[in-house]
Amino acid sequence: MSSAGRPRGRRPGPSGTRETILAAARVRFAAHGYDRTRLRDVAEDAGVDPALVHYFFRSKDGLFVAAMELPFRPAEVLGPLVDAGVAGLGERMVRRLLGVWDAPENRAALLAIVHGASAHPGAAAALREFITREIVGRVAGAVEADRPALRANLVASQVMGLLAARYIARVEPLASLDAEDVVPLVAPTLQRYLDGKL
Amino acid sequence: MSSAGRPRGRRPGPSGTRETILAAARVRFAAHGYDRTRLRDVAEDAGVDPALVHYFFRSKDGLFVAAMELPFRPAEVLGPLVDAGVAGLGERMVRRLLGVWDAPENRAALLAIVHGASAHPGAAAALREFITREIVGRVAGAVEADRPALRANLVASQVMGLLAARYIARVEPLASLDAEDVVPLVAPTLQRYLDGKL
Repeated sequence: MSSAGRPRGRRPGPSGTRETILAAARVRFAAHGYDRTRLRDVAEDAGVDPALVHYFFRSKDGLFVAAMELPFRPAEVLGPLVDAGVAGLGERMVRRLLGVWDAPENRAALLAIVHGASAHPGAAAALREFITREIVGRVAGAVEADRPALRANLVASQVMGLLAARYIARVEPLASLDAEDVVPLVAPTLQRYLDGKL
Repeated sequence: MSSAGRPRGRRPGPSGTRETILAAARVRFAAHGYDRTRLRDVAEDAGVDPALVHYFFRSKDGLFVAAMELPFRPAEVLGPLVDAGVAGLGERMVRRLLGVWDAPENRAALLAIVHGASAHPGAAAALREFITREIVGRVAGAVEADRPALRANLVASQVMGLLAARYIARVEPLASLDAEDVVPLVAPTLQRYLDGKL
């Protein structure tokens, strides 16, 4: 973690500066996507020292999470699951995913992001790149079998569909099932995609 | 199929009448949803004889398909697959689904519907009810194992996720794979949901 810069000149105090950086980040992510955005570009757009962006947000994914108001950093949630190895990863992923989405405060924030992205093509594209790099990419990195990128795509397809069916379309009885009852239904699908014969 | 009524009074000719009915249907489906809309309500809104609505669209699902500009009637696509029995149904469904979505003219129309629904909550709710009744309900009807409704929900979750990943998010390499190479990846998931041990 880099040491803090300080707001300078006629800039407002730290919390105003943080908001200025986030506003600049939203515009740049929407216009240029996630992959092509650099922290230093956002700093320049916001008229602040790049060290300040590092100080507030630590990394590009931290900045994106704050700009999109994601309720958590996916890297922090997914990292420990993936680090424990591919055995049982399908089950750990479904359980953690449902735990996050079943919490009402997370769910409201996540649904707001989904709806925001459907109204703003630039935000949707940036979100897609973020998910591809920070989530699908990490899953692919955990795969030891052949075709890791394709396997991670398949995992993403079942995860997206589960979230869409349970939390957005709210199909019944799936939407009302206890999370622990959903785990054994979907975990074998993810596990086959991760290390099964395709 | 009922015999044709004819436009009366100061109504325009048949094609104008058809458009009048469709406009009334769009408003009513968006306001009241799919399940609670009756053909006779749409006829009344449009100021035409109910027989005319039957003549043009045959059934409520036919009217909905025309109003939403769906490129085909899901009941007509799904019916023959389901009628052939649950054995091999997962494979037949994936193959047919990809065949429909891979055709550029269908895909453009289907993506337009998805985007339209994300901008109009009423249209989204009606589409959800339509899919639940005309698609998920038919799949549930084909299941011979326990918990048919839940199994159909799980099928829907993987189908929605596959469509979202391949055609909307366009994740690679899944998006560029030949349809025939996708079939053996996803069909076993659907088949397990249809008749496997859960």
